[in-house]
Amino acid sequence: MSLSPLFTEYQKTRQYTERLCKPLNIEDYVPQAADFASPPKWHLAHTTWFFEEMILTKYVEDYAVFDSHFGFLFNSYYQTVGEKALRAQRGIMTRPSVEQVYQYRHHVDEHMQRFLIEDIQNDLSDDIKALITLGINHEQQHQELLLTDLKYTFSLNPIQPVYHQDFNLVAQLPITKEQEGEWLSVEEGIYDIGHNGDGFCFDNERCQHKVLLQKFEIASALITNREYIEFIEDDGYTTFSHWLDDGWAWLTNNQVRSPLYWQKIDGQWFNFTLAGLQPIDDEASVSHISYYEANAFASWKNMRLPSEFEWEVASSQFDWGQRWEWTSSAYLPYPGFAISEGAVGEYNGKFMVNQMVLRGASVATSKDHSRSTYRNFFQPHHQWQFSGIRLVK
Amino acid sequence: MSLSPLFTEYQKTRQYTERLCKPLNIEDYVPQAADFASPPKWHLAHTTWFFEEMILTKYVEDYAVFDSHFGFLFNSYYQTVGEKALRAQRGIMTRPSVEQVYQYRHHVDEHMQRFLIEDIQNDLSDDIKALITLGINHEQQHQELLLTDLKYTFSLNPIQPVYHQDFNLVAQLPITKEQEGEWLSVEEGIYDIGHNGDGFCFDNERCQHKVLLQKFEIASALITNREYIEFIEDDGYTTFSHWLDDGWAWLTNNQVRSPLYWQKIDGQWFNFTLAGLQPIDDEASVSHISYYEANAFASWKNMRLPSEFEWEVASSQFDWGQRWEWTSSAYLPYPGFAISEGAVGEYNGKFMVNQMVLRGASVATSKDHSRSTYRNFFQPHHQWQFSGIRLVK
Amino acid sequence: MSLSPLFTEYQKTRQYTERLCKPLNIEDYVPQAADFASPPKWHLAHTTWFFEEMILTKYVEDYAVFDSHFGFLFNSYYQTVGEKALRAQRGIMTRPSVEQVYQYRHHVDEHMQRFLIEDIQNDLSDDIKALITLGINHEQQHQELLLTDLKYTFSLNPIQPVYHQDFNLVAQLPITKEQEGEWLSVEEGIYDIGHNGDGFCFDNERCQHKVLLQKFEIASALITNREYIEFIEDDGYTTFSHWLDDGWAWLTNNQVRSPLYWQKIDGQWFNFTLAGLQPIDDEASVSHISYYEANAFASWKNMRLPSEFEWEVASSQFDWGQRWEWTSSAYLPYPGFAISEGAVGEYNGKFMVNQMVLRGASVATSKDHSRSTYRNFFQPHHQWQFSGIRLVK
Amino acid sequence: MSLSPLFTEYQKTRQYTERLCKPLNIEDYVPQAADFASPPKWHLAHTTWFFEEMILTKYVEDYAVFDSHFGFLFNSYYQTVGEKALRAQRGIMTRPSVEQVYQYRHHVDEHMQRFLIEDIQNDLSDDIKALITLGINHEQQHQELLLTDLKYTFSLNPIQPVYHQDFNLVAQLPITKEQEGEWLSVEEGIYDIGHNGDGFCFDNERCQHKVLLQKFEIASALITNREYIEFIEDDGYTTFSHWLDDGWAWLTNNQVRSPLYWQKIDGQWFNFTLAGLQPIDDEASVSHISYYEANAFASWKNMRLPSEFEWEVASSQFDWGQRWEWTSSAYLPYPGFAISEGAVGEYNGKFMVNQMVLRGASVATSKDHSRSTYRNFFQPHHQWQFSGIRLVK
Repeated sequence: MSLSPLFTEYQKTRQYTERLCKPLNIEDYVPQAADFASPPKWHLAHTTWFFEEMILTKYVEDYAVFDSHFGFLFNSYYQTVGEKALRAQRGIMTRPSVEQVYQYRHHVDEHMQRFLIEDIQNDLSDDIKALITLGINHEQQHQELLLTDLKYTFSLNPIQPVYHQDFNLVAQLPITKEQEGEWLSVEEGIYDIGHNGDGFCFDNERCQHKVLLQKFEIASALITNREYIEFIEDDGYTTFSHWLDDGWAWLTNNQVRSPLYWQKIDGQWFNFTLAGLQPIDDEASVSHISYYEANAFASWKNMRLPSEFEWEVASSQFDWGQRWEWTSSAYLPYPGFAISEGAVGEYNGKFMVNQMVLRGASVATSKDHSRSTYRNFFQPHHQWQFSGIRLVK
Repeated sequence: MSLSPLFTEYQKTRQYTERLCKPLNIEDYVPQAADFASPPKWHLAHTTWFFEEMILTKYVEDYAVFDSHFGFLFNSYYQTVGEKALRAQRGIMTRPSVEQVYQYRHHVDEHMQRFLIEDIQNDLSDDIKALITLGINHEQQHQELLLTDLKYTFSLNPIQPVYHQDFNLVAQLPITKEQEGEWLSVEEGIYDIGHNGDGFCFDNERCQHKVLLQKFEIASALITNREYIEFIEDDGYTTFSHWLDDGWAWLTNNQVRSPLYWQKIDGQWFNFTLAGLQPIDDEASVSHISYYEANAFASWKNMRLPSEFEWEVASSQFDWGQRWEWTSSAYLPYPGFAISEGAVGEYNGKFMVNQMVLRGASVATSKDHSRSTYRNFFQPHHQWQFSGIRLVK
Repeated sequence: MSLSPLFTEYQKTRQYTERLCKPLNIEDYVPQAADFASPPKWHLAHTTWFFEEMILTKYVEDYAVFDSHFGFLFNSYYQTVGEKALRAQRGIMTRPSVEQVYQYRHHVDEHMQRFLIEDIQNDLSDDIKALITLGINHEQQHQELLLTDLKYTFSLNPIQPVYHQDFNLVAQLPITKEQEGEWLSVEEGIYDIGHNGDGFCFDNERCQHKVLLQKFEIASALITNREYIEFIEDDGYTTFSHWLDDGWAWLTNNQVRSPLYWQKIDGQWFNFTLAGLQPIDDEASVSHISYYEANAFASWKNMRLPSEFEWEVASSQFDWGQRWEWTSSAYLPYPGFAISEGAVGEYNGKFMVNQMVLRGASVATSKDHSRSTYRNFFQPHHQWQFSGIRLVK
Repeated sequence: MSLSPLFTEYQKTRQYTERLCKPLNIEDYVPQAADFASPPKWHLAHTTWFFEEMILTKYVEDYAVFDSHFGFLFNSYYQTVGEKALRAQRGIMTRPSVEQVYQYRHHVDEHMQRFLIEDIQNDLSDDIKALITLGINHEQQHQELLLTDLKYTFSLNPIQPVYHQDFNLVAQLPITKEQEGEWLSVEEGIYDIGHNGDGFCFDNERCQHKVLLQKFEIASALITNREYIEFIEDDGYTTFSHWLDDGWAWLTNNQVRSPLYWQKIDGQWFNFTLAGLQPIDDEASVSHISYYEANAFASWKNMRLPSEFEWEVASSQFDWGQRWEWTSSAYLPYPGFAISEGAVGEYNGKFMVNQMVLRGASVATSKDHSRSTYRNFFQPHHQWQFSGIRLVK
């Protein structure tokens, strides 16, 4: 009897999460360095809770929850004030221990595997399979966050810890290789936007619909550190006219003068990486910039960022997948979008205000977790993702 | 010799601003009740500064500025931290006095009128005429803000002052009369969006372009207070599922339980108006609601807000102009939008992030200051404008 | 029939408050520039409310309050959260108008005068006389605050308004004249501390008691601006070791580098005064410094501030009255101190934590409102009073 | 050869710190739950750094510091803004690991022991011995903080972890046993205050001096939970007149309605303890209250708190040592107090403002770390120490 593809995908995803944690000390699992980040321990448990809550407690007869507190502790979403405090206090929850969280994972894995083997025999419904696939994709999202949150935590430590000397090896991801830039032309026309295939997609990608685009030209290459340093050296961060009003307030209040993690030592730029402090590679794509910075850079170039529709239409013509790319589009529902009932409904629709769309994927994105219709979104001031710039003119 | 239309328009606008201030005590001109609001005195001076700075100092030979400090005090835009403090301290600037500000207005008016009379004789350039028209429209915007800011200030005073017993008489605006509601249908198609005529428009309306819309049905009538009270009584403000995540945080942190200015006294709803505290008129359009509230109401109705494009295309089919109407569109540049050079360029483009578009106009909007392409915009939590709800299904 | 001394004192005090307001525009009466300050209008009304509430409504038969809202608006003390908001919003209360507040004053004055004339005929009780005297002293306190609050408001206005070209003339106070400094010696011994005479004193000065003091030497002169500039120029504000921990946090967070109101222009120190911006007078006593600064200065000199007991015992040997003088004493109750019943009890005892005692009086203190047992108190970071430094070694 | 008493004391203290950590998971060593608290890991390292920095690097030839980063990471005191951020980020320093911190401890212990053995042979100077004794007392202070900080962290965890089922056994401390209360009388007189013996004391206890006290009566027993519940049930937390102004603001802003760690479940009071959630013991001394609460309770009783001088003079007549006892004295220098040169000088003098004195010791205080002249001090809002109430009348 061969295993189902879903079983294999589940296994692979669950193992990869734990593989990402291999270089960690137990201490590293604990802290939450900012409200927008979560501890590794929480990521490990929360992704597990999803399968327990959405599958095991609903579809497995007599399933006993591993620990009745975990639903409360590792649910991501809190509605009331008192509970909201919990969100900011993930870093003080020293108990359950890391070991107990791993036991929780293995307990749920065992039950999920049994359930998935029955899948072959019992022909589980498409709805259940779709939920499991959602859980797998959900965990892949947290794999990326686990890395970016950890990088943020480590960066605040004066001794600048190394996650792994060779981050790419750990994460099994290709080395960034920059390409020659050119301008790619897209004609005016009506284009299909959104997901319309058999494969998995999130609810915010659905409802494929037609959009009318004007003619535009988009860069085949991302902006490099070298180009970004030109912006810095041309007083980019102190020239008011390049910046949105909110962006100017943000950089003034936070004294921002470079991408996150950069520092200048004896006249040379370095950046903190998962492999420790490293000199800036001039020809690598710039990363860890906010929407405000991306927009100001484009303004300085007398160009602009692509809309998310332009990006999606043009994406087959260029390489992408190393940097999440800021678009000029606010994160809004597609025509026909409807929030699902229940906890799953809180997935994406709740956040459709005050956020900008990013397209593509990043070096920290898990394999098989990207497609041209994927819509990522963050508030415009966030820098802690591997975010970059592609221009349109 | 007859006066030019621009001369007449200038006169009328300038006089109307002062007419709006007739019911004020000198004390009323001073305070700034919130960061988002400005004192009447500041509105009076700032609109004047616009004409002095953009026209008189540039195009009138030997013009001497009224007071060299005024450019600093009454400029709306501050770039640096130190100056930003000024924005929050408009309410402590007791000097120059109200009388001096009126002298400033009359000084500038005199010079502007002389300049405009020369217009007839000397055939002023279209650029200059456009700038003056911009100044007139700018002042009309501040007329509306003057009223909404004043209402906000008065509302915080425990003795609830009356601006005027008959607000509509003062403002020369029609009494709100509600219409029967019905559903208006708009077919799928490609529509022109944006301004494309001879008349005045702001830079953010320009660049008319084509947009592809799906079929939709839009309500001919705005949501009434009666309908909104149903939402309140159906636990609208305490049912998490209706609200965006940011909206829920906003209402929780601010203990919002009704539109701004509402209070329940002995089981009956009242609201604070420019004519003092008044019982809620059930059949009047709901007003003073945030985008978060408008969106939650629509969600409760299983409907949605129109996009700004849908609104613009359908607007010829319904009455509007009593409430600014929240749309589902984030405030973003139209294709081809470019920020103008210099101070005029700060007008609209600087704010194209974290704001939602409102369409229409309100009872506080000055006459001749509305059109179907007009794009107003505020952050989603603001309630102090006369904002309302129109639904789409 | 001659008028009683209390009648005369009442008249003089009430008139002096209004005299201090003579140089004001109506606009100047409105703003509250900081939480710790109050608008002139509020000072005028609050001091009046004291007499209405404590005397007229209690002891004058058939007295009708001038306006039933005023008790709420002009009471100084708010217990609940909602009401606390009012404290920070004194500056937006444009109504009642300044004119109405003056009518309120004159209404209360008329009734008080009638009541005080009856005093002569009817032999009013000592308790009532004591309450009226308290009201007079209360108003004198607000006279000083009126000036220091106004100075603070004006200082924030970029055009730096002038209250009066000759502040001393308006306030009928002697010109500061500095004296030669010398060290005055006080022997170890047991001394009486606190008030014990027939005249008026506040409740916090009562309960005269004995205190044992060690021998000490106290400076006959206050620290001058010249001496304070030496401290600044010797890196006083950037040398950590001089400062209390809280003081260092305060100066770091607020970027304090000099006394309040000082600015350096082209290498020379100026300060903002009630007569506008003026060059620093090197030989005048330093003023507008916080306790943190006074303490750091003393530490830099290897000396210390006097305790309030040392100050009181030595005060007969030196001139004082131009600067409130920071002492090393925390503001605490004297042995036997008891908080009075009712609203009068809120006068002083409520504030006996987190404040330091100042002794003496200042150029802004009203005549007849100082004595050697007087205990003023402020939180250690406040700079907006005319506060100075006297050293002990 | 027998070991010196200092060697023995050093050993015992260092071992006791580690013994207190025995019940901890590695995860428990990491978080900092509030700015006022520190992680166990930091306490372990910081107390060690004291000996390395003050003794080994100064007096041991060729001593090599264990890790050059540790001085920066585990120093308690930060002067500049950037470094101050570190203070609030102790909880994100996952590296060095707990294991490395223990290695650090053992490295320093080894060198200290060698140095102390030489003590016997080489007759180390009194200054060095005094410094080592200071380090021992410093570590004892951190033993208490380690427990109180841990309790605070655990209390925020919804699953309410247990430090140890029998806290007293772990900490080798006697069980609280309440005594009968009576009133002890102390006569008016001149008393010696401060330390004047051969044993160790902190700098703030030195400079014994005479103080004149009035006659007073002090309670032999601390206030019990039963008595405190009477205060709660008599609307103690909602009756404004009992509270200092700052205290009222504190309880209003923080919604305080009981001592820290208390919660009412089904009408019965429980409190969170180091042995988990426990029912309140009515006859145990109330604990975890702020100065504001202690003062309000005394006011409700029409009594007062003792001054620190009264407490010291009377202390030989009653049992103490289970609760730190709030006094009515602000924390100020004794006559003749001088801040020492260098880092040691930052020990106590820097904090002599905005704090109240506590006298006695608590169940969490290490053995041999209390005496009647000991002056503890905290800001008046802090509740996280084992603080209690003794009354004077």
